[in-house]
This record gives sequence, structure tokens and C-alpha cells, in this order.
Amino acid sequence: MLRVNPNLDKIEISVIRKIAEACKEYEDGEKKLINLTIGEPDLPQSKIIIDKTIEYMQNTRLGYPQLGGMIELREEIGKHYKDRYKVNVGSDEIIVTVGTTEGLSTVIKTIILPGDEVLTPLPVYSGYEPLITLAGAKLIKMDTSNENFELTVDMLKKHITPRTKAIIVNYPSNPSGVIISEKNRDDILKFAKENHLYIISDEVYSEVVYEGKHNSFLQEEYRENVILINGFSKSHSLTGWRIGYIITSKKIREYLLKVHQYTVTSSSIISQKAALVALKECKDISSQVNIYKKRAESVYNKLKEKNIFAIKPRGAIYIFVSLDGITNLNSLDFAKTLLEKERVAVVPGIAFGMDRYIRISLVKDEAILNEAIDRLINFINK
Amino acid sequence: MLRVNPNLDKIEISVIRKIAEACKEYEDGEKKLINLTIGEPDLPQSKIIIDKTIEYMQNTRLGYPQLGGMIELREEIGKHYKDRYKVNVGSDEIIVTVGTTEGLSTVIKTIILPGDEVLTPLPVYSGYEPLITLAGAKLIKMDTSNENFELTVDMLKKHITPRTKAIIVNYPSNPSGVIISEKNRDDILKFAKENHLYIISDEVYSEVVYEGKHNSFLQEEYRENVILINGFSKSHSLTGWRIGYIITSKKIREYLLKVHQYTVTSSSIISQKAALVALKECKDISSQVNIYKKRAESVYNKLKEKNIFAIKPRGAIYIFVSLDGITNLNSLDFAKTLLEKERVAVVPGIAFGMDRYIRISLVKDEAILNEAIDRLINFINK
Repeated sequence: MLRVNPNLDKIEISVIRKIAEACKEYEDGEKKLINLTIGEPDLPQSKIIIDKTIEYMQNTRLGYPQLGGMIELREEIGKHYKDRYKVNVGSDEIIVTVGTTEGLSTVIKTIILPGDEVLTPLPVYSGYEPLITLAGAKLIKMDTSNENFELTVDMLKKHITPRTKAIIVNYPSNPSGVIISEKNRDDILKFAKENHLYIISDEVYSEVVYEGKHNSFLQEEYRENVILINGFSKSHSLTGWRIGYIITSKKIREYLLKVHQYTVTSSSIISQKAALVALKECKDISSQVNIYKKRAESVYNKLKEKNIFAIKPRGAIYIFVSLDGITNLNSLDFAKTLLEKERVAVVPGIAFGMDRYIRISLVKDEAILNEAIDRLINFINK
Repeated sequence: MLRVNPNLDKIEISVIRKIAEACKEYEDGEKKLINLTIGEPDLPQSKIIIDKTIEYMQNTRLGYPQLGGMIELREEIGKHYKDRYKVNVGSDEIIVTVGTTEGLSTVIKTIILPGDEVLTPLPVYSGYEPLITLAGAKLIKMDTSNENFELTVDMLKKHITPRTKAIIVNYPSNPSGVIISEKNRDDILKFAKENHLYIISDEVYSEVVYEGKHNSFLQEEYRENVILINGFSKSHSLTGWRIGYIITSKKIREYLLKVHQYTVTSSSIISQKAALVALKECKDISSQVNIYKKRAESVYNKLKEKNIFAIKPRGAIYIFVSLDGITNLNSLDFAKTLLEKERVAVVPGIAFGMDRYIRISLVKDEAILNEAIDRLINFINK
């Protein structure tokens, strides 16, 4: 008697999960498995965050937080955006969410309707399309490979239709590590405003930039068009805590808040406290960023030496490696064979809409990453 | 340029919030405000839960939990249902959720489609209708006042149409404290099976029963029809932790899991650990239940002495009091005036679809509850 939402049949088990499942077979093998699939920082969570959160748990009644999130946390997020991006953000323009996933889900449920089209540049994070599909809308993916993998306004002009409702951007990009130039960002914002489009900007890697600077889409002049999503999973390694936030205009927030409230009530008050400590006491994460930078450079250079093309990451925690000149296999078959033969697990590019690539997560020590690249090169040479 | 889901305009700010807002005005007044609006247990969270969770936080990397929830927690939930309700529940039939709210939201998003009708008995918890409305469906509310506020199969027969997709039940009931008889439950289950309807059973008050026993809708023979929602907010006062679960058949779970994953990824791993400790080490909550029982009896008897009719609660943490013979005001106006004149805040029955009632939460000490009832009686006498 299964009578469920038929859109759910269009959502497949993710390719990332398929590879994760395949990994299990090789976990206890003789040759040690190097799993570079998951987008989970390996760098430790700050002791001060854990200690202060524990103190709070010992001294506070852990009841329902305020609707939309602890007021102190929202104020601190506002301060952070003022200090770092020179944008004024009030507490009534922020919702604290169950990680960026709930942020995205709440935003898409609120503004995307059946029949809508949503534009996004390729390669694209695999979490967006299922939510768009579930909403009965369509994700239109735009090739950016001739533009250094940055979205440009010309691409938007080419793909906009009367059904276009929103643009999803994700810079620094998962999986490419590309950041967007100020000029492209400004052109896109202007275009969105002129065409009454929403920009959903997933900036969860905003703090992990190692070349150039992060150009946030949250700009004073375009506040009515922009819905920013961010969180603490990548900047402070707080993945399991499920804590993030949405920033938007007061008007849009009123609608988002209804969806948020009836979807989750709130995120855990414990995680909200942890986020507050993170913002107040762990502002400087440059040492972590430097570790990712060193890993990225090391892997990039090693590949380059062997004439393997990869997009040079300027932020985030991945490197996106081209399969051109390496194999004729599609990315899933390549990843499966690499896993089988060399015990190195990577994510097939098809998960991000680009079948001629693989994604390597930079979430292991440099030595292990180097070993993985050696195995990859060895595999290719065979 | 607000172009949002038009269903959102049909969802109003909840009456409960309106009263909560009104409360703020009186917080610092001379006469102490007694706030009996919120459904949040005042009884303390168990020290062992907090201590063991803290120990876990100190010794474990708090990364992403397994998809669908920590396997140990799911196994323990299964054991609990086996021990307590004699039902076999496998780990692959459970999803750990961000409180019961996310459970409900995930279930409704998965199975309720535009145009569907969902049946529910009155009085009804105010969190269901917004989710049904958001899904583009309709909640059909059935009067149960001639049946001691229990849902019967005859009511279902009267209200079923070809559009009926599901029945939402919530026993022990918020706000009435009514529990359902074994016979009514069995008849409803049979009817649902024959008519290919889902039963969404919100059993978040399952452990808070002080007269008779809780008859869970999770019955072996009807597993394909039943989606059970439960959590730890009421049984273990873990409100702010946001932790609950869904139990259903393996087949339905596959669909629910897609929605769950893309809505929140998972609930906080910290809260999952807390729930595990709660199930393993805080099984016996009878002393708490006795406190609610004493409060319920005390308030009920006090009202009865004055010939004020209330539904006698047999579970949950509320008492639903009739306004008949007391006032001609509607429940919102009555609640507002009571607040203004006597500084006692209660929830207007209209929030639960019954305008001739008010809901009093039994979440204060007996002495405070008695004081509130004295004020209520005093107010009525004027």
C-alpha cells in the first residue's frame, strides 16, 4: 500500500553512498583502505568549545531555545557579518538551523514551487538536486568549464526562462574549491535583482579560503534577493553537532521561520551554545586553514608533475581531478576500480554532475594523501 | 519580490505564540505571572543522562552519526518496544529524528500529497495542521465529545472519502489527557488496513500514563499501515536536546530516510547519545509520572468541587477545561482577560480546534497550580 510522494522515486541513493557501501568490503583488507570520500573535516574540534559547552550543560536547564535560535547566538552571528563582511545583519534576519542541510531544506520548501526552475553552475554539490526534485521543481545545471568553473552572468542570461525562480551558488565550491571573483558576484547579484530571482548562497566553506578572499553574496544592496546559508561543520569541525544558520531579509525570514518551526522546532540548545562559543572564542581558524592549504598544494603539485589536470582549489576541503587522458571509464567505474585495485576511495564526479572527474577530500594527513596519490598514479600507469 | 509557497499564507502565527507574546507584558508585574501555557516538563533532566553524555563528549570524536541514527540507539529503541509492547522492531525500521517535530514533518512530507485528506480527532495538537496545509492537503477534524474524546471507527466511517490518505492519532492526547481503549485502537487499525490508510500515531506521551495503560498503535499485524512517532522530550524532559524517532515498516522507512537525510542529515550525535543513556539507564520514570498524576488529580478535584467541567486526564501533562457555564467569551478572549486580570496564562482551546475550552499545562509545582486554579475560580466568580 505504498502511496508516497512520487517525486521520491526520482531521488536515487546517492553515488557517494554507493561508494561508501563499497568501501565496507575493503575495510579489513591487507592493504590499508584510504577513504577520501567524506566531506568531514579530520581536524579536531576545539577543546574550548567542548569545555564551555559542557560547563553550560552542567549549569543550565537545557529547555527549548527561543524560536529562531538563541538570541545571543543570533547577535553574535550578526557581529561576525558586520566585522568580516561589513554587512548589517539583525537578529530578526537570522534563523539558527540544524546544520546547513536544514537551512537549505527550509529555504527550498519555502520558495521553490512545482514547475519552478533553479539555476546552478556545475560542478554542483549533490545535496541540492534531491530537495529541488522533492519540491517538484527542476535544477538546471550550467557548464562552467570554459569560465574557470566560475558562474558568470552570461550563463544566467543563456539559461533564464519565465520559470526561473532562483539561483543556487556555492563558493568556495564543493567539489571544485573555486571561489568567485568580486566582479562575477556583483554581476550575478545585479542580474538577480533585475530579474526578481532569489540567490540561495551556500557559503559553508566561507572561512576555509587559502588563496584570494571569499566574496560573500550577502551585500547590503541586494538583501531582498539573497538567502545565505552557513554553518559550523566546516569552519569548526562541528559536523555531528548539526548547527548552522540562515541569513536573509526580515520579510523572507517570517516565511522561513514558519517552515523551520514546523520542520524541527529548533536545533539542539547544546549545539547552539557550542556555536556561540565558536564565534566568540575561536575566531581565528587560520592554522586549520593553513593545514588544508598545504594539503591542497601538495596534492595539486604532485598531480601536476604527472600531467594530471586538477582544478586548483582556492578554498574548501577538496580537489577535483580530471579523468581526461587518464581513463575512458566513467567516473563511477573508475572510482570502483581504483577502490578495488588500490584501496583508495574517492567520489565519482558524476555525483556533482561531471562524469569526467573525481573528487578527493583533503581530510587526511598530508602523508596519507601523498600515499593515496602515489597509488592513484600507480593505478593509472598500469 | 516575495514569491513564496502560497500555502504559507494559510498558516497563521499560532494562538499559543500570541498568548506567549501577551505574557511578556506581565512578566515583571506586582502580581506574579503563572505561565501554564507551555508543554515543557518542569521536572529535571536526569543527572546520569547529562553526566554520561558529557563523558561521551570528552572521549569521542563528535562526527556525523550513521545515516538514520546511531545503530546502538536504534537497537535500544527496538529492545524497548519488544520489552514494553511485545512488538519486534528492527534497526532498519527506525529513524532517529530531531525531536518528534522532525518526525512528523518527515512523515507528512513523504506520504501526504496535494489534495489528500487527513482525518484526526478533536481536540487536536496544533502542530499537525500547518504541516498538512504546507503539503497542500486538508486536515479533517472530527468531534469526539460524545465519545469521551476518544476516536472511534464510526467517526472514521462517517468522514472517509476517496481522498482520505491517513489518520493522525495522538494518545495519550495533548491537550485532553485521554488515552485510547484497546477496542477502539484495534477497530481503527482494522479499518485503516481495510481502507489502505496510513495511521500516523504520535505517541510522545506514551510513558506518561497515570490511569489505565497506553495502547500503542504499533501492532505486529498492522505494521505496513502504521508510522509511529515518539521522542524523549516528555518522558525524560529532554526538550532542548531535540531528539525523537520514527518506527515504521522497512519499506516505508526507505522513503522516509530520503526525506530525513535531505532535510536534516541527522539529529545531533550528542542528543543521540543522551537518548541512548535515557533508554538504558532511566527506564523507570514512575516517580515523575506520579508527580504529574498528583497534579492532575489535585487540579481536577479542585475544579470539580466548583462544578467546573474538565476532561479527566489519564496521561500526558495537561488538563483541558470546559468554558461552558463559565463564560460566553471565546477561548482566546477568555485567556487574554484571565491573563490581564489574574496573571494566569493558559492556552485557548481554539488552538486545538475547540473554542469552548482552555488548556492548562501541569508543569508547575502543585502549590503553584493550586494558586492558579484559585485565581481562575476567583476570576470566574467576579
